[in-house]
Amino acid sequence: MSNPEQNEVPTAAMLVIGDEILSGRTQDANFAYLARFLATLGIDLREGRIVADVEDAIVAAINALRTQYDYVFTSGGIGPTHDDITTDAVGKAFSAPVEVHPEAFARLSERYQPGEFNTARQRMARIPVGAHLIRNSVSVAPGFQLENVFVMAGVPMIFRAMLEDVAPRLRRGSLVGSVTIRARTGEGRIAEPLRALQKAHPEVVIGSYPYFLDEGYGVQLVVRGRNLAALEAAAQATEAMLRESGIDSERLSG
Amino acid sequence: MSNPEQNEVPTAAMLVIGDEILSGRTQDANFAYLARFLATLGIDLREGRIVADVEDAIVAAINALRTQYDYVFTSGGIGPTHDDITTDAVGKAFSAPVEVHPEAFARLSERYQPGEFNTARQRMARIPVGAHLIRNSVSVAPGFQLENVFVMAGVPMIFRAMLEDVAPRLRRGSLVGSVTIRARTGEGRIAEPLRALQKAHPEVVIGSYPYFLDEGYGVQLVVRGRNLAALEAAAQATEAMLRESGIDSERLSG
Repeated sequence: MSNPEQNEVPTAAMLVIGDEILSGRTQDANFAYLARFLATLGIDLREGRIVADVEDAIVAAINALRTQYDYVFTSGGIGPTHDDITTDAVGKAFSAPVEVHPEAFARLSERYQPGEFNTARQRMARIPVGAHLIRNSVSVAPGFQLENVFVMAGVPMIFRAMLEDVAPRLRRGSLVGSVTIRARTGEGRIAEPLRALQKAHPEVVIGSYPYFLDEGYGVQLVVRGRNLAALEAAAQATEAMLRESGIDSERLSG
Repeated sequence: MSNPEQNEVPTAAMLVIGDEILSGRTQDANFAYLARFLATLGIDLREGRIVADVEDAIVAAINALRTQYDYVFTSGGIGPTHDDITTDAVGKAFSAPVEVHPEAFARLSERYQPGEFNTARQRMARIPVGAHLIRNSVSVAPGFQLENVFVMAGVPMIFRAMLEDVAPRLRRGSLVGSVTIRARTGEGRIAEPLRALQKAHPEVVIGSYPYFLDEGYGVQLVVRGRNLAALEAAAQATEAMLRESGIDSERLSG
């Protein structure tokens, strides 16, 4: 595992777990939510992976990601049914036995009527030894944190509630500022001056995203960076380049 | 690379390339589209990855995926701007030089007015040596296929049009049938009989997906399989289990 203290900006990856995403039945919504959430904490989301409900695939992905990034967030596979295998897979990835957690067991047992807290529901109290619970305001079934891996539910409402519990445990980075400039032009027309601009402003990252709408086409130029003075200088240089090229532009944000 | 002839069911992975997905600015739509598209061809989508516009990250992901799966589909990073680095990264992954493709160059040059076909736009005619063009009905800028890797645009409209050109090149598998049964119950209540059902019907995969709506909660049970007789038998056994448990259910599809 990389040492968070050694990196100025914390890095993260997300692992989305679930057959339903790979079959196309469900459109994942958690990745984009996490991306925006981490951005508000100044944490760089660097990679995403999507794997099926297959133990070997989950174990391999967890081990690849947890050694490369400061934080790994997973969604899916922690419910009571036979296809919920994430908890055991994470335990296996860490060679940690999975055992009933007394607090999780107590909270779950209070939730159910007598006779309803069956074996399957009791399974939701099992977490790897050494892990800490992730609580949430929607459900009594917990997620858990094992070292730098945060294991959360796939249901978006619960995933989001769990992130609230996780946020205070994360080291924050300085925020990335962003300026979006819309230019009514084909991106090929400005690609060369844009390349020169990127070279002249190495402290920022300039992204170019063409759009095609009924009212016309154009490009959104997104300038991003942690140094706000450098960001504003690069944004103004981009606007000046567009002006000099005779292209209408509009600053949408930043 | 695995030999497609040796596997009955073709497998695939998708690599989504782009800073805008990782920053949360853009919600990817291509993965879910590809998942549904491949399902109609009987090809199993097994894994997804999302990486930034960083050459080393793209090269590593391409090489990891192309050796594990029959097909790899990428989206993003093939436009004319400085942040479009996918073509060179794929060339590097295959140790293939990237050169101007005469047909791509000719088609692009016809599209532009005299003086408009600048260096940046000419870059879109560069593909790795040995690759085949992927044409589309929306744009003259091509994608390309290099061995088992299909490199396509990130703009969803163009990505989808490119898939139409790619489809005839893909080996098809037998289709996966699917039956969805909605049950008005908490999934924990039926988790144990469901586990037994999965064990008794190893030819199908049973997924359990809870939902929480204003009108109430419940679970969607999705039974999937290539053997349609086994699929129907498992679906009926699931319905019988629900009936015997006194739970209302409804078959939504299949």
